[in-house]
Amino acid sequence: MRKVNRQSYEARRRQILKAARACFTRSGFRGAGMKQICAEAGMSPGNLYHYFAGKEAIIEALCEEHRLEVMGRFRAMEGRGDFFQAMLGYAGEAMGRRVDLQHRRFTAEMQAEALRNPRVRAIVRRHNAALLAMGAAAIAQAQALGQVDPALDPKLAAALLVGAADGLRLQLALARGLDAEASGRLFTSLVTRFLRPGADASAGRVD
Amino acid sequence: MRKVNRQSYEARRRQILKAARACFTRSGFRGAGMKQICAEAGMSPGNLYHYFAGKEAIIEALCEEHRLEVMGRFRAMEGRGDFFQAMLGYAGEAMGRRVDLQHRRFTAEMQAEALRNPRVRAIVRRHNAALLAMGAAAIAQAQALGQVDPALDPKLAAALLVGAADGLRLQLALARGLDAEASGRLFTSLVTRFLRPGADASAGRVD
Repeated sequence: MRKVNRQSYEARRRQILKAARACFTRSGFRGAGMKQICAEAGMSPGNLYHYFAGKEAIIEALCEEHRLEVMGRFRAMEGRGDFFQAMLGYAGEAMGRRVDLQHRRFTAEMQAEALRNPRVRAIVRRHNAALLAMGAAAIAQAQALGQVDPALDPKLAAALLVGAADGLRLQLALARGLDAEASGRLFTSLVTRFLRPGADASAGRVD
Repeated sequence: MRKVNRQSYEARRRQILKAARACFTRSGFRGAGMKQICAEAGMSPGNLYHYFAGKEAIIEALCEEHRLEVMGRFRAMEGRGDFFQAMLGYAGEAMGRRVDLQHRRFTAEMQAEALRNPRVRAIVRRHNAALLAMGAAAIAQAQALGQVDPALDPKLAAALLVGAADGLRLQLALARGLDAEASGRLFTSLVTRFLRPGADASAGRVD
């Protein structure tokens, strides 16, 4: 493909993904039909199907966009001696942002659909596994640097922290009077206290 | 109402709630109509409307059921000197259970609906606020006993832990190869490390 063609192809693709996201957020995955997505993107069905075979393919592409964004964040932290601090900074920044209700609605809709629709579940599971693998690799790297408790299982710890981050964002959308900035600081404190070496030793074993 | 009448009234009510829960889990809040709920409960619409004015009233009652259950748990822990250990035991037990996909599906559906439907959002918000208030009161009580870091804001800490618990359960439903029992132990460890007094002092301040 010539460069100019590829650029226009990519721009169209992004346009469709943005439109689909808006439709899923507004009407839910089941409620939003390809017709609605075409109308939102201002494209004919024939043209849109040239880019995506259906709603599942769109979800897959949205997950991939998100994965690349998170991967970029992790890459930017790698090789830094203060790797753990960089991770904390990333987490605190992400958790301290004001909650975007539209974004939360989209996430909740995808999670609900994943639990009831096996095809979407397979996509979301692969995506989630990729995120956990990145988190686990980061924790393992910080363990190798002596910055994280070596007794923790990296994958399980990553699942717990990814889950905690997700659940906290939902709480910020639901509970009134929670300050996003304060919750970002508290999340950073939770991650530090949870991951740092010797935490159990100084307080006696839990079990 | 005579006792026998009240018992039969309560039994009918529970029967409807159980049926509605099954319908919401299967078809989503929007997909499940009152007609479907009547069929599942084996009742005529006229009879069912005698108990609930509509789907919102049913959601409200399901939340109330859950609130009473959680309140019962907290009551059973109150006044114990080892209050914090009792809380940890409760959390570890709840988090260590195998994930029930049907239950997770229902929860995810309610969360998604709460974010898109203002009437359901109001109900879920009230319910969530009641759960956070119980959690915050428990943390404050443990602080008064010197068992939890006095520097933590009880409400925000409760929101973070309720969110973390919720997010971890979703992770257990989505990620493969996570052991529920191990995740229960890890969650207990997270709560301990996060809440116990002097955690920051022994590791330097986060900020």
